Amino acid sequence: MNEDLSREIERMALAARDASQKLAGMSTALKNRALLETARSIGRNRPALQEANALDLEAARAHGIAAAMLDRLTLSDEVISRMCGGLQEVAALADPVGEVVRMWRRPNGLLVGKMRIPIGVIGIIYEARPNVTVDAAALCLKSGNAVLLRGGSEAIHSNRALVGLMAEAWEGAGIPPGCVQLVATADRGAVLEMLKQDTCVDLIIPRGGESLIRFVVENSRIPVIRHYKGVCHVYVDQGADREMAKRICVNAKTQRPGVCNAMETLLVHEAEADTLLPEIISALRERGVEIRGCPETLRRSPGATAASDGDWGAEYLDLVLSVKVVRSLEEAIDHIRRFGSLHTESIVTKDYDRAQRFLREVNSSTVLVNASTRFSDGYELGLGAEIGISTTKLHAFGPMGLEELTTTKFIVQGAGQVRQ
Amino acid sequence: MNEDLSREIERMALAARDASQKLAGMSTALKNRALLETARSIGRNRPALQEANALDLEAARAHGIAAAMLDRLTLSDEVISRMCGGLQEVAALADPVGEVVRMWRRPNGLLVGKMRIPIGVIGIIYEARPNVTVDAAALCLKSGNAVLLRGGSEAIHSNRALVGLMAEAWEGAGIPPGCVQLVATADRGAVLEMLKQDTCVDLIIPRGGESLIRFVVENSRIPVIRHYKGVCHVYVDQGADREMAKRICVNAKTQRPGVCNAMETLLVHEAEADTLLPEIISALRERGVEIRGCPETLRRSPGATAASDGDWGAEYLDLVLSVKVVRSLEEAIDHIRRFGSLHTESIVTKDYDRAQRFLREVNSSTVLVNASTRFSDGYELGLGAEIGISTTKLHAFGPMGLEELTTTKFIVQGAGQVRQ
Repeated sequence: MNEDLSREIERMALAARDASQKLAGMSTALKNRALLETARSIGRNRPALQEANALDLEAARAHGIAAAMLDRLTLSDEVISRMCGGLQEVAALADPVGEVVRMWRRPNGLLVGKMRIPIGVIGIIYEARPNVTVDAAALCLKSGNAVLLRGGSEAIHSNRALVGLMAEAWEGAGIPPGCVQLVATADRGAVLEMLKQDTCVDLIIPRGGESLIRFVVENSRIPVIRHYKGVCHVYVDQGADREMAKRICVNAKTQRPGVCNAMETLLVHEAEADTLLPEIISALRERGVEIRGCPETLRRSPGATAASDGDWGAEYLDLVLSVKVVRSLEEAIDHIRRFGSLHTESIVTKDYDRAQRFLREVNSSTVLVNASTRFSDGYELGLGAEIGISTTKLHAFGPMGLEELTTTKFIVQGAGQVRQ
Repeated sequence: MNEDLSREIERMALAARDASQKLAGMSTALKNRALLETARSIGRNRPALQEANALDLEAARAHGIAAAMLDRLTLSDEVISRMCGGLQEVAALADPVGEVVRMWRRPNGLLVGKMRIPIGVIGIIYEARPNVTVDAAALCLKSGNAVLLRGGSEAIHSNRALVGLMAEAWEGAGIPPGCVQLVATADRGAVLEMLKQDTCVDLIIPRGGESLIRFVVENSRIPVIRHYKGVCHVYVDQGADREMAKRICVNAKTQRPGVCNAMETLLVHEAEADTLLPEIISALRERGVEIRGCPETLRRSPGATAASDGDWGAEYLDLVLSVKVVRSLEEAIDHIRRFGSLHTESIVTKDYDRAQRFLREVNSSTVLVNASTRFSDGYELGLGAEIGISTTKLHAFGPMGLEELTTTKFIVQGAGQVRQ
C-alpha cells in the first residue's frame, strides 16, 4: 500500500468528520442557498465542464470503450440541464434533520422522543456517470451529511471539475469546507483505504456493477448499503383482468428494460395459461421481447426457446423474459423466494385474499398489487428523490430518499427524574 | 479451518434461513404460546438446568475464574425466575410485525405504505451470562426472526440445556424447527464461520467486552450493530437547580456504577465551580466515589487527584469520576464530541435555550435534559424490552427494542397503473 495515498485518504476522512459535525447544525435556508448556487454555477460554467468532460471522452475512446459507456460518460447540454434541475428539486424538498418523529410520556413524567439527525459522513463509490457526483452530493448536503466521493477513473476530469464548482459554491454560501471531497485518483487502492476509515466514515453506498459492489462489501469495515441486482417478478393470478395484466407486463418489461426494476420473470397461473398467457406473450413479442419459457409455456408459445436452469434468477437488463406457468399463489411465492433478489415483485389479481397474502408474505423491498414494477423508485413512490435502492434489510430496505440518509437519536425531557 | 465445523455452521445458517421464512408469517398468538410454554418449561426444569449450570461453574472454578464472573455465570433461583418473568413480559408486548407505519396516496392514485417485517436471521455472539440466551431468543421470536446463538464456552452446558428446552417448547407450540439454534462448540473458529454466512444471516449483534466486539466488527461480512463502550457525560449548567444537580449526579454515578449508562465524566460551568461543584463532589465522596479533576476542580477540592489525559474518555465502570470545569455550553459540547462515545449525555439546566441547544447539538444516541443518564435503557425509555444499545448510527441508534429487530418493506396498492 502506498503510504502517501493512505495518509491522504485518512486526512480527507478526518476533514469530512470535522466538517460533518458543523454541518449537522446548519439551517435549512443555508443548505438550500448552497444547492441553488451550485445549480447557477454549473449552468454558468457549462463550457468549462464540457471541456473537462472532453478529456475523459477522448481517453475513453482511446481505450476503445463501448458506445453505451461513452454515452453514460457524456456531459451533454441535456445532462447538465438535468443536473441543475435536480439541484433545484432537492432544494425544494423538506429538510428531514431535526424532525421529531414521535414523542411519548413515561409513567414517571419523562417525555421521550426520537429526533432525526444526519448520519455523519457518507462515502459514495460509483462508476462512470458523472451526474451521480452532483446528485449524490446534493442529497447528502440536504440531509446534513458530509460526503466523500470516489467516482470511476474514466470520469476523473469531469468529476474534478464538478466537485471544484460544488465546493466553491458551498463555501460561498457558508457551508464549512470539507463537506464535499473527491478522492481524485485512478489508484484502486484508494477504495480500500476509504473502506478502512471506520472511525470517520459512517456509511458506504456503492453504486455500480455487481463486481464493484461485492468488492466493497468484502473489504469494508464500515456499514454498506447496497443492492446487487434486481430480478423482479410479475405474477398474473387466476382471474386477473386481461387488459390490466397485459398493460402491466408490457410496461414492466419494455418501458425501460435496462434498469433494475424491470420485470425479468413472468409467473402465470395455470388457469390463464391457455388464454391470457398467449396474449401477453404476443404483446411482448410485438415489442421485440425474446421469451424463454418453461415446458408449459413452450406448449402454448411455439416460437419461444426453452428456459435453462440459469434463466430463473437471471437479470437480463434486456428485451428477454423468462416465463413460467405455476399451479398456485404458493408456488409463485416459493419461486420468488428461491430465485428473487428481494427487490420488487407485483401481483395482478382481482382476488382480495390473494392480494393481501402476496403483500404480506412476499418480503421483497417493494411489493405491489396491480401496478408495474417500474414504480419501485424513490421519485415514483413519493420520497422526492433517490440515492439508491437497498436490498439489505438493515437501516433501509427499498428505494432510499433523504430520510434514509438520516438516523434518529432519543431525546428525553425531564424535571429532575432519577432512576430508582 | 476445520472443514467439518465450517460445513456444520453453514448447515445451521441454511436451516435458520429456511425457518425464518416460515416464521415471518406466523401469528402473534402462536409466538406468544411458544414464549409462555418456554417460561413454564424452564420453571419445571429448574433442577436439570441448575445441574447443567453446576458443570459450568465447576469448570470455571477449576480455571480460577474471578468471583464477579462466577456470579454472572450462576443460574440461581432468582436468575431463573427473572428469565421466566422476562418471557411473560415479551409475550405481553405488542407484535411489531405487519404494522403499517405510514401510508400515503400518490397523484396517480397509487397507495404507498411501509410495512414492518422481520429482519430474517439474527446471530447473537455473547459472553458468559446464560440468561442472555433466553432473553435474546425471546425477543427474536416475538419479532419473527430466527436466531443463531453463540454463547461463551464458559456457559456451554447451561446454554445447551436452555436452548434444548426452548427448542422443544417452541416446536411443541408449532414454531418451525431451526428458529433457535446454538453454536455449541468452544472452538473460536465457529465465530469466524458465522461471520461469513452473509447469504443466510442478516444481522450480527455482539454483546460483551470491547475486544470481542472489535473482533466481530473486523471479521464480519454481515452488518453488525454494536457499542464499544459508554462514556456518559453530565453537564451542570450555570444556574442549575442545586438539589436537582446533586440528585442527578449521584444517581448517574452511583446507582449502578458498573453499567454502560453510568456517568463517567462530570462537566460543570465555571459559574458553579465555587459553590455547587464542591457540594456535588462531597455528596459523591460520601458514597465512596474517587474524583479525578482538572486543575480548576483540584483548587476547589483538595482531596481529589489530578486527572491525566487518559481520564477524559475513560470508561471506569467503577466508583471513579473525572470532573472538568468548563467556561461555556460550547466548551462542554466540544468536550463531549471529542471524548464521548456517542452513548448518553445529560444537561442539568434551568435555561430554555441552552436545553434546546444541548438536545439539538449533541448527537449521542440518547440526550437528556434534567434527568439521569441511567434512563438510557430500553425498558426505561418505554420500548418494553432491550436487546442491546447501538452506538452505530445505521439502522438503530441507542437502546434497541422489538421494533429495531424489524425492517420495513414498501407496499403498493394499485388499480392497474403503469409508468409513463
